Amino acid sequence: MRTADRYVRSLRELELVLYVDGERVADPTTHPRVRPAINAVAATYALAHDPRHRELATAHSDLVRAPVNRFTHLFTQPQDLVRKLELQRVLGRLTGTCFQRCVGMDGINALFVATWEAGGDAHARFVAWLEQVQRSDDVINGAMTDPKGDRSKRPGEQPEQYLRVVERRPEGVVLRGAKIHQTGAANAHQILVMPGMAMRPGEEDFAIAAALPVDAPGVTMVLGRQPSDERKGGPDAGNARYSGQEVVVLFDDVFVPWERVFLDGQLGPCATLLETFAGYHRASYGGCKPGNLDVLIGAASLLTRLHGVERASHVRDKLVEMAHLTETVHGLGLGASSKSTQHGSGVWQVDPVLANVCKHNVTRLPYEIVRLAEDLAGGLMATMPSLADLRHPVIGEALRTVVGSDERALALRLVESMSYGAGSVPLRIECMHGAGSPQAQRIVLERAVDWEAKVRAARRLAGLPPREGEPIEDRRVDAEIDDAGQ
Amino acid sequence: MRTADRYVRSLRELELVLYVDGERVADPTTHPRVRPAINAVAATYALAHDPRHRELATAHSDLVRAPVNRFTHLFTQPQDLVRKLELQRVLGRLTGTCFQRCVGMDGINALFVATWEAGGDAHARFVAWLEQVQRSDDVINGAMTDPKGDRSKRPGEQPEQYLRVVERRPEGVVLRGAKIHQTGAANAHQILVMPGMAMRPGEEDFAIAAALPVDAPGVTMVLGRQPSDERKGGPDAGNARYSGQEVVVLFDDVFVPWERVFLDGQLGPCATLLETFAGYHRASYGGCKPGNLDVLIGAASLLTRLHGVERASHVRDKLVEMAHLTETVHGLGLGASSKSTQHGSGVWQVDPVLANVCKHNVTRLPYEIVRLAEDLAGGLMATMPSLADLRHPVIGEALRTVVGSDERALALRLVESMSYGAGSVPLRIECMHGAGSPQAQRIVLERAVDWEAKVRAARRLAGLPPREGEPIEDRRVDAEIDDAGQ
Amino acid sequence: MRTADRYVRSLRELELVLYVDGERVADPTTHPRVRPAINAVAATYALAHDPRHRELATAHSDLVRAPVNRFTHLFTQPQDLVRKLELQRVLGRLTGTCFQRCVGMDGINALFVATWEAGGDAHARFVAWLEQVQRSDDVINGAMTDPKGDRSKRPGEQPEQYLRVVERRPEGVVLRGAKIHQTGAANAHQILVMPGMAMRPGEEDFAIAAALPVDAPGVTMVLGRQPSDERKGGPDAGNARYSGQEVVVLFDDVFVPWERVFLDGQLGPCATLLETFAGYHRASYGGCKPGNLDVLIGAASLLTRLHGVERASHVRDKLVEMAHLTETVHGLGLGASSKSTQHGSGVWQVDPVLANVCKHNVTRLPYEIVRLAEDLAGGLMATMPSLADLRHPVIGEALRTVVGSDERALALRLVESMSYGAGSVPLRIECMHGAGSPQAQRIVLERAVDWEAKVRAARRLAGLPPREGEPIEDRRVDAEIDDAGQ
Amino acid sequence: MRTADRYVRSLRELELVLYVDGERVADPTTHPRVRPAINAVAATYALAHDPRHRELATAHSDLVRAPVNRFTHLFTQPQDLVRKLELQRVLGRLTGTCFQRCVGMDGINALFVATWEAGGDAHARFVAWLEQVQRSDDVINGAMTDPKGDRSKRPGEQPEQYLRVVERRPEGVVLRGAKIHQTGAANAHQILVMPGMAMRPGEEDFAIAAALPVDAPGVTMVLGRQPSDERKGGPDAGNARYSGQEVVVLFDDVFVPWERVFLDGQLGPCATLLETFAGYHRASYGGCKPGNLDVLIGAASLLTRLHGVERASHVRDKLVEMAHLTETVHGLGLGASSKSTQHGSGVWQVDPVLANVCKHNVTRLPYEIVRLAEDLAGGLMATMPSLADLRHPVIGEALRTVVGSDERALALRLVESMSYGAGSVPLRIECMHGAGSPQAQRIVLERAVDWEAKVRAARRLAGLPPREGEPIEDRRVDAEIDDAGQ
Repeated sequence: MRTADRYVRSLRELELVLYVDGERVADPTTHPRVRPAINAVAATYALAHDPRHRELATAHSDLVRAPVNRFTHLFTQPQDLVRKLELQRVLGRLTGTCFQRCVGMDGINALFVATWEAGGDAHARFVAWLEQVQRSDDVINGAMTDPKGDRSKRPGEQPEQYLRVVERRPEGVVLRGAKIHQTGAANAHQILVMPGMAMRPGEEDFAIAAALPVDAPGVTMVLGRQPSDERKGGPDAGNARYSGQEVVVLFDDVFVPWERVFLDGQLGPCATLLETFAGYHRASYGGCKPGNLDVLIGAASLLTRLHGVERASHVRDKLVEMAHLTETVHGLGLGASSKSTQHGSGVWQVDPVLANVCKHNVTRLPYEIVRLAEDLAGGLMATMPSLADLRHPVIGEALRTVVGSDERALALRLVESMSYGAGSVPLRIECMHGAGSPQAQRIVLERAVDWEAKVRAARRLAGLPPREGEPIEDRRVDAEIDDAGQ
Repeated sequence: MRTADRYVRSLRELELVLYVDGERVADPTTHPRVRPAINAVAATYALAHDPRHRELATAHSDLVRAPVNRFTHLFTQPQDLVRKLELQRVLGRLTGTCFQRCVGMDGINALFVATWEAGGDAHARFVAWLEQVQRSDDVINGAMTDPKGDRSKRPGEQPEQYLRVVERRPEGVVLRGAKIHQTGAANAHQILVMPGMAMRPGEEDFAIAAALPVDAPGVTMVLGRQPSDERKGGPDAGNARYSGQEVVVLFDDVFVPWERVFLDGQLGPCATLLETFAGYHRASYGGCKPGNLDVLIGAASLLTRLHGVERASHVRDKLVEMAHLTETVHGLGLGASSKSTQHGSGVWQVDPVLANVCKHNVTRLPYEIVRLAEDLAGGLMATMPSLADLRHPVIGEALRTVVGSDERALALRLVESMSYGAGSVPLRIECMHGAGSPQAQRIVLERAVDWEAKVRAARRLAGLPPREGEPIEDRRVDAEIDDAGQ
Repeated sequence: MRTADRYVRSLRELELVLYVDGERVADPTTHPRVRPAINAVAATYALAHDPRHRELATAHSDLVRAPVNRFTHLFTQPQDLVRKLELQRVLGRLTGTCFQRCVGMDGINALFVATWEAGGDAHARFVAWLEQVQRSDDVINGAMTDPKGDRSKRPGEQPEQYLRVVERRPEGVVLRGAKIHQTGAANAHQILVMPGMAMRPGEEDFAIAAALPVDAPGVTMVLGRQPSDERKGGPDAGNARYSGQEVVVLFDDVFVPWERVFLDGQLGPCATLLETFAGYHRASYGGCKPGNLDVLIGAASLLTRLHGVERASHVRDKLVEMAHLTETVHGLGLGASSKSTQHGSGVWQVDPVLANVCKHNVTRLPYEIVRLAEDLAGGLMATMPSLADLRHPVIGEALRTVVGSDERALALRLVESMSYGAGSVPLRIECMHGAGSPQAQRIVLERAVDWEAKVRAARRLAGLPPREGEPIEDRRVDAEIDDAGQ
Repeated sequence: MRTADRYVRSLRELELVLYVDGERVADPTTHPRVRPAINAVAATYALAHDPRHRELATAHSDLVRAPVNRFTHLFTQPQDLVRKLELQRVLGRLTGTCFQRCVGMDGINALFVATWEAGGDAHARFVAWLEQVQRSDDVINGAMTDPKGDRSKRPGEQPEQYLRVVERRPEGVVLRGAKIHQTGAANAHQILVMPGMAMRPGEEDFAIAAALPVDAPGVTMVLGRQPSDERKGGPDAGNARYSGQEVVVLFDDVFVPWERVFLDGQLGPCATLLETFAGYHRASYGGCKPGNLDVLIGAASLLTRLHGVERASHVRDKLVEMAHLTETVHGLGLGASSKSTQHGSGVWQVDPVLANVCKHNVTRLPYEIVRLAEDLAGGLMATMPSLADLRHPVIGEALRTVVGSDERALALRLVESMSYGAGSVPLRIECMHGAGSPQAQRIVLERAVDWEAKVRAARRLAGLPPREGEPIEDRRVDAEIDDAGQ
């Protein structure tokens, strides 16, 4: 398994085409807007060698018969799903941000399931690739979301809005299009493209799953702007060391050989892939977000101490509320992960209802936690001069009296960055839209809930007769109880 | 294991002293305000013999080396905690109300743990009693809550507000006082008294745990009034068959022999008892309440069909929201139950943080679900004339036109009873105060959360130096990452 | 103006056909389920003669050139709308329940506006009738809501679900059908029927507004069941003196002479009537509900004192929250009432957006207030034995020790009745559906909001060019500011 | 009255000492981080000359017997308070941000009241100054908030944390200390210092209210950092033209002549000042914030059109919810402003309860509105590359396909800036802490609510006897009603 050092070095060997703010980047590992994201990924490597976390951060792979980094591991034991969540919480707390390898991990597992259902060579090809990934310990950028353009149109009506196969050659396929919202793509070794929605007959060209190196010819990456990103690398960054990253990946006729094509037009397995991935990834948010929120709670708590109000009842109450909501998210991730079932392929799947319920709460509760953090932190977090002012020879001393201490200044910057700055992306908008927007979860829930069973229970208890064909076992219990003791 | 029929018969053999609304009750099994509660308990017996649910409703006891009803079972396997929750959901949906045996079950397990810690004869006496309970399959009324009077005073300042030992004789103890909020007490065979709060040195007389028959001399029970309870047994009852029940139990110098005294003044084990019980019981609400809520959702859904609005988007959205909140509660119960640890006694304990988080959500979310049910059900649920009017020879026909159908009338009554009537007690006030009021959970959370770890993570990420004595492993990871690739 | 005494006597002179729970009622003024509702209405008469409130409770009528009870008054001054709200709050606090005359008052004003728009004799007939009402000081039952049956069908497809004209004779019209949710109908002198929804061409027979005595031949009233209504008149009633009331009114070919027919098929004025009434009545909830909630807050506060916890910070915080939410509702009622405009008829109308916003908050906030009341009151409110038990010669003394004091017992019953019992109907389901269900307010808001103005502002500030035909005055301001100081 | 142009020119004439990010600023009117804030203030001048808004934006002053800009006007008519709110909404919508003159306006009125109470020369001096301000139409920076340091200490224990008089000379006072959170200070002409909390005997040196030019010797200003402030003046700014601004103002022994000292140690009037200011300013948020939110709603609405989802029911529902919450805030501002009372000085004061209720809702509802905007806007708002990338010769075309249109890119940037960027400060943290943090409002509410009246109403309705000395008029009404008809 790679170390953090070897991970960073490996990135330098790639010939990545990456643009940031209109400029081509030569070495991402030293670029102030990219390096913090690399650091967050590096933590996933460091923990695999850390005696405290090694057991959590690694797993024994039956495929390569060796220990592997958990981020390349299949969920072959029920406990793997729970351990994934625990590892995510540790990393979320360690980095305070998104560590960017979960889409790859969840994607690997979902594609294992989907290619197994597709049968034939697909699964074998995928397994062969996965063995290589486990050995190399590569960062896999799971690439799902297409731009989608006008949501009222299908892919065929606006093909340029979807990644698609534009040519099939004897040796492989040619891909064109783009993937957006690509978390951590500029820090990855490989891209694993997958379709971003269920496709219908006639849309086979959009139903493609394949792996390719990030520096394959024709791949261009453009870093997304993020709030306060110009502060990165500077003293006002808040969380200076770690950050997330979002990338648009452009595919300009990129060739992928067949051995790396795992699905090509199989609509059923693609639907399976999406559903399985959604389950895994919606539960994942019950791991990483609570870890991030731990940091925000800690920062708010620290500030209340520095303000001398940490014993005020309303302050304590707000901290408890923040913790309560954080653990609500975590508990739901655990609930979804512990209520798992084994798929025919051998991989375990989370409970789909609870995974969606977990994520749906994630679209709400962290916002309230952030609101409470802003309440506790106080207005200075958005009115304080820069650290450059605080250290200025003329005005610095007076300003430091105003602010109180360097401790307070830095803690305020941390809360600011997690509420408004680069660190707030994983805590707000990613909570909202990552792994599917709120409405996506509601649609799954509406489909997954057994409404008829509920209606049946209500009718029976209201004293209404059974409808034709309705199971009546519960009514037999009622009758037994009515007669009891007679 | 008892059947429903033998359970009801067994109640007739007791010489219970029970008052309802100022009158002594001769036979509770035929009293209109008591029988629905008996029916709900009877369901716990019926399921143990129901082929569909037998596996869930029973368990193998290592104590008596035989299958026992799960409500008398110890949580000796990690899965026992999860199965408990699943059984509670089935029963919650079957009865639409509180089935009253969970306090006993959770109390048995907590007392097993506490007496094991107390050591000596205590544990042996308790185990001997428990074996008898498992064999007889008795309903155990777990009796915890004292009246408490003025909350700013300790027991010693107002002893009459607490159940207490007033005499210790060679053969046993004499108890005086009362227990309130005794769910299902009038349907039980035995009372298991336990202290309702942690006691301090000097308060040993209040630290008593013991078992006694419900008809022990000196025990008097008085049924609590509940909303719309005069409708019970009538056509407007809503859920006519099943109901909960709350009882005040008065102890007028009740003698208990030593063999049924399990704790007597051991303050530490009493504190353990309380904490362990709170954990179990706060997770339990993640089982039964979702089952009850299933019925309410079903009733609301049924009404939207009868109103012809079931396809309206706002209607569907509200139903989805009700299901989402219901599964939030259930998922947290599962999360708490799956994250268990084994106590030295061999019994498994739930995660205390998640159990409190589960219950704390229960003090909020069901209220919102009920509100949505009232929205969907429409105003007629509180303005509709009685069923007697609807069936009246003169005005009935015109009224039935107004109401639309018997189906609608009965569904409205069911929602009414679960929102305002007898059926609303388990869905609202019991959610609020059962297993501890909201503030009790906040106090546990404030204590259980590792605030220092959060502050430490925040300080480190904000760029602040370690404080003296602080663990610095995470800072070593930071340094490794800073150096990576250099 | 009538006194309370003369009001009650006047009811005895009516030959009302009223059923309660399957039985014909001879004298409503002594019936335990009706008298409390009569009492609440009587308060509206008493205040008009009370020196403290006379100014608020009465107004000078230009029609009859004399002071009249405000409940029969037209909103001819802007301040009339605000005073209405203030009077409602006083009465809401005095009675703790619905005092039942607001639909009549708001209906009178709305019909004044609508008949003015209809023009011709309609308005003159209405004014003549109104003068009589102001002189007699009658209680007017504003009757709007039809049963409606299947919401996906129009009235013509299910005429039996709507009140309608079934015959037009030279002397008047014949009405058939029913009105439901008729608050206070059994305590009124006259019924003012109005259409419950906007009608379309071809539905003229359903577009009828007319007045008739409550004891007109063919009118039958049936009292709706309400939670815990069997307690009325007994010691466990909670608020024993005052209560609301809901009635189904059946019209079995009821004749109304033309002089009391105000609208008959005029679709436009009917739509005006509905919209105007909705505005008035949705703002009204900002008056009465805060008054009711004052009582609930007072009861909760009283209980915290009796429990000795009134200084606990979480207790104080919950009381403040209850007050905050209560004043939110009241402030919105005031906002809607103060932002009024004068209609051509001379009557002032509330701001429709704010009136709907007020009511929409009423469908949510009181539920949260009730939830907090249940939190503060404690579980005993739903587990306490009856007052009959508490005063029982054998068990009473022990029970009184448990409960603590009569004060506490009665305060608990009050909270119970306002949370679950008869007193909860005005605080929950009436808040939800009265004056229109939540979705009705959202529909008005969607229509009333000027979305284009908002989009225009956003486009301009985002730096987008004006669209064709768009007003550009704000862009001129921008340009002026860009140039400033150059 | 000044024009926008003359306002900007006037700023150039000041010799302001201003630092931004460690550098001294020569001309604020051209500095990219300051000019947008100047523009927002300029709008308050432009509207006074705009035919559409002149009536709202100006008022007749009895002091100078001439029309003045409303921002320098006293609330001498009840309608002045309502018009203030309407003007704030217009400006909030026009600029999409904070226009920075309200603290001055509210401060002027509060100080008019307070100096009137102080009596003597104080009021005359203040009025003389105010006349000059009305004539010059200056921007007044109302400076209240002291750094406060450790909140558990009084000013005397940490004088450096409060602005204070360090010397009293025959000609005037010398001030030392700092004021923080100074909205718009760098765009103002004068500073009006006021105490930020009620002072106690012995703390007279901290009870100082006085006016001074922004460029008085010893005054230094330091611009606060705000989220994404480095984008200001660039293409990714979102709202490029308008912005708010927060400043730390340092007072290094600043001399103020007596004629500009309005309060100096008068503790009572200082408390009046604070309370009156809090009332005005907490209601003000019901004006400007809804105006800002209009823009955010418009931007979200625009994006749903660009995505082709504007007819989806959940989308419409979210927009309606945003509008509902926005109007809730506005309605409460109107409610507080319309329920005014006249102070002895002649100035009208808002209702203190409703003003606090308005502001308290402002600490919550805008956060939910922003959350909904993020939901509707979609994830691209935080993952989209910079405008520089979108216009790049190599990658621009492909990126523009991904983004869809310039319209969408700019609308996304606007939502981003109002949710995370510089434009989010007025919509979130300023909503939270401006005009007092949430707890400050709760403290006022706890004090201002008449709890005893509520308890009295509850006791009476519960059937409890009057307590000694309690007013019993309502009980006389009860008795009258009990007897009615007997």
